[in-house]
Amino acid sequence: MEHAAVLVTIGNELLSGLTVDTNSAFLARGLASIGLKVRMKLSAADSIPEIVHALHLAEQQGTVILLSGGLGPTSDDCTKPALAERYGRPLIFYPHVMEAVQAHFRRLGRTMPEINRNQALLPERSTLLPNAFGTAWGIWIEEGGKHIIALPGVPFELKPMFTEQVLPRLQQKLPPSPLLSRTLHIFGMGESAIAERIADIERSLPPAISLAYLPHYSVVRLRLTGSSPDADALRNQMHEAEQNLLHRLGDAVFGFDDTSLEAELGKALRAAGKSIAVAESCTGGALAARIVSVAGASDYFPGSIVAYANEVKQHLLDVPADLIGQYGAVSEAVVQAMLNGLLQRIPADYGAAISGIAGPDGGTAEKPVGTVWIATGSRANRQARRFQFRGNRNDVIEYAVMNALGLLLQQVRAGS
Amino acid sequence: MEHAAVLVTIGNELLSGLTVDTNSAFLARGLASIGLKVRMKLSAADSIPEIVHALHLAEQQGTVILLSGGLGPTSDDCTKPALAERYGRPLIFYPHVMEAVQAHFRRLGRTMPEINRNQALLPERSTLLPNAFGTAWGIWIEEGGKHIIALPGVPFELKPMFTEQVLPRLQQKLPPSPLLSRTLHIFGMGESAIAERIADIERSLPPAISLAYLPHYSVVRLRLTGSSPDADALRNQMHEAEQNLLHRLGDAVFGFDDTSLEAELGKALRAAGKSIAVAESCTGGALAARIVSVAGASDYFPGSIVAYANEVKQHLLDVPADLIGQYGAVSEAVVQAMLNGLLQRIPADYGAAISGIAGPDGGTAEKPVGTVWIATGSRANRQARRFQFRGNRNDVIEYAVMNALGLLLQQVRAGS
Repeated sequence: MEHAAVLVTIGNELLSGLTVDTNSAFLARGLASIGLKVRMKLSAADSIPEIVHALHLAEQQGTVILLSGGLGPTSDDCTKPALAERYGRPLIFYPHVMEAVQAHFRRLGRTMPEINRNQALLPERSTLLPNAFGTAWGIWIEEGGKHIIALPGVPFELKPMFTEQVLPRLQQKLPPSPLLSRTLHIFGMGESAIAERIADIERSLPPAISLAYLPHYSVVRLRLTGSSPDADALRNQMHEAEQNLLHRLGDAVFGFDDTSLEAELGKALRAAGKSIAVAESCTGGALAARIVSVAGASDYFPGSIVAYANEVKQHLLDVPADLIGQYGAVSEAVVQAMLNGLLQRIPADYGAAISGIAGPDGGTAEKPVGTVWIATGSRANRQARRFQFRGNRNDVIEYAVMNALGLLLQQVRAGS
Repeated sequence: MEHAAVLVTIGNELLSGLTVDTNSAFLARGLASIGLKVRMKLSAADSIPEIVHALHLAEQQGTVILLSGGLGPTSDDCTKPALAERYGRPLIFYPHVMEAVQAHFRRLGRTMPEINRNQALLPERSTLLPNAFGTAWGIWIEEGGKHIIALPGVPFELKPMFTEQVLPRLQQKLPPSPLLSRTLHIFGMGESAIAERIADIERSLPPAISLAYLPHYSVVRLRLTGSSPDADALRNQMHEAEQNLLHRLGDAVFGFDDTSLEAELGKALRAAGKSIAVAESCTGGALAARIVSVAGASDYFPGSIVAYANEVKQHLLDVPADLIGQYGAVSEAVVQAMLNGLLQRIPADYGAAISGIAGPDGGTAEKPVGTVWIATGSRANRQARRFQFRGNRNDVIEYAVMNALGLLLQQVRAGS
C-alpha cells in the first residue's frame, strides 16, 4: 500500500471556530515535500473519547498519523491520556523532561508554575521530541507498522519540531513514493477565463497528472500534481504539461511554487537595483505591511505614508485641498496627486497610491463600497486604474493590496 | 440524540497545504450561535470516492453535514457527482439556475464562458440556494432525518449564503439545545500564569461547564462553554463562573466574546473623543493596517508613517541622525524621538512608535532578532518598553503589533 498521512488537529477552539487552523496547511506542505500525501484531515474536541475515536478513524486511512494540540499542562489538554489509552502506554514521569522544562523557565527568568510538572508525564515506550521553545514535548509512537506523532499546537513550537525532528526521521523510516507538484501563480485572469483558455490542455493531461485551481482574491494558483511509480516518465510528463500551460498563459504567470506577488516584486526590485514607496488611504498600511513581510525588504523599501484623513493627504502628501473638494478623495486626480507627493517626500524609483471605499459605510450611488483607485508607476511612467471590488471591508482591502502589488510587479519587470 | 454538526471541507489544496482553511472557523462560530455544536471536522480530496467516504463518516457523527468547496465548473470539482451518488439524486439541468448564472456574467459585463453551463446541473430533489456573488449555487438535501448542505468554498460567496440562507433555515428545522459560551480576552498574562491564578476556580467549575485556553501571541482567550438541558440553571452557573474569573483576573481582561485589541482600542478612543497616529519601522504598516481593519476607524485614525529606512526616520519623523548613530535605530532614544516627531507631523492625542529587529537577519549579540522597542502615549504621558519576542519574522511583527495595541488600550482607558 502507498503510504499516506492523516492530520488530526485537537482543540475545542478549532471546532467552535475561535481559532483558524493554520498548522494543517504547514504540515501538509512539509509532508508533500518528502512525497507523503495527506489523505484526510480531521479535528477532534478536547476530550479523551473524541480523540480516541479520531485515532480509530485515522488508523484506517494512513500509516502516518500526525496530531497537533492538546499537549499543554492544563486540564483541557487530553492528547496524552488519549494516546495512553489507545496504545496501552501509561503516562510515566520522565526526569530529564522535567529538568528541561525547569531550564526553560530559568532561561525566561521565571519560576516554573507547579502545573508544569504535568509536562514531564508522557507515554511509556515512546520516542520523545524535545521542544526548544516551550514545555510540551512531542511524542512518537510506533504501533502495528503505523507512526503516531503528537506535536504541540502552538505554531512556533510545532514548526521547528516538525521541520527539524519529524520530517528527517519520517524520511528515514518511509521510502517516499514519487509525487511531484508544480504550482503556477497567475495574476490578471479569473478562474473561468483560465479554465476556458486551457480547456484542451487540461483534457489531454495524462491520467497520472491532475490539475487544481486555487483562486485567492486576484491571484489564481494552478497546481499540477503527478503521482506514478515511474519517476522518470512522470518528470517528463510534468515538464511537458507545465510548458504547455506556460505557452498558453504567457505573462499572466508571474511565479512558481512557493511564492507570492510581494516576494516576486521584491526579487524584481532587487534585480533592477530599484526602490519602492507607497501611499495608502483605504488599505491603511496593509500594502506596506505586505511588502515588509518579505525578509530583506529594507534593501528596496524605504517607507510609506498612510494618509487616511484628508488633512494628512494634504500635509504629508501635498495633495491640494481643492482637488479633494472637486473630485473627492476617491478619484483619479487624487491618487495621481498622492503618488506625486509621495515620490517628493520619500525618494524612490517606483510608487503606488491607493484611495478607495472599503466600507461598510461611505459608499454612494456613483462610488459604491468597493470602489478603489490605484495609481502605480515611476517618475517617468504612471498609470491609474479604477476597480470595483466585491466583499466586505477586509476583502476590499485585500483585493486592493493584491492589485497594487500585481500592477507594480508588471511595471518593474517591464522596466518602465 | 442531541443534534450535532460535521464540517466537511473539500479540496486537494486543503490536504496539500496550499490553502489555509478559514471557512471552518467561520461556519463553526455561526453554528454555535444557534446552539449547534460541531462534533467533527474533516477534509477530503477532490475525488468522488473520497467525498463519498467522507459523507459516510460524517453521517455517523452528526445530523447536519455542512460541505464547502468543490462546486465550481472545472473538472476538479467533484462535490455534485459525489452527492448524486451517495444520495441517489442524479444531476439534472435547472433552467432558472442557468438564467441566473448568465445574468451574473451580464452584470459583470462579460460573456459567460461555456464551461459555466455545468453550474446549472444540480442534484434532483434538492433545495437550491442562490449565490448572489458567484455561479455555484448551494445544495440542501434532506435524507433520513439528516441535513446535507453544500456551499461553494470561496469565502465571500459562502459567507452570505451561510448567514442569510442556511442559518435561518436550520434554526427553523432544528430546535436548539441550550449551549452557552462566554469568552474573556486577556492581555499581559501568559497561559500558565493564568492557569495558576485561577486553578481553584477551574477545579470547582460545575460539570456542565468547561474551560479552554486559547493563546494567540500576547493575548489569551479563556472560553467558558456550558451545555445542559436546564437552561436557567446553566445561565446562573455561567454567570457565577464568569464573575469569579473577572474578580481574580482584574484589568487583565480587556474584552468579551467576539472582540480584539484593535476593536476595543477603537471603542475606547471613540468614547473618549480622542485620536491616534502611529510610526512604524520593523512592523512596516502592520499596526496601522490592524487599526484600520476596524470599520469606522476614520473617526479616530488620521494616518501614520512607516519609517523603514533611517533617512525616512530623519526626514519624515525628524529623528536626529546623531541619535541613530549613537544609540542605533532600535533603541529607547529613537522610538521616543519617533513618537515626538510623529505627533508633530500628524497631530493626534495618542501615538505609538515601534522599532525592532524582525529578522531573519540584522540581529547582534546585544540586540538579537526579536528585540523590539515600543513607545506609546500622549503628549503628556509617555512610556517606552523593550521586548524580546520569539519566533520568525512574521511572529515578531505580530507580537509587536499586539503589544503596541495592548499598551495603547491600557493608556487610553486610563485616560493618561
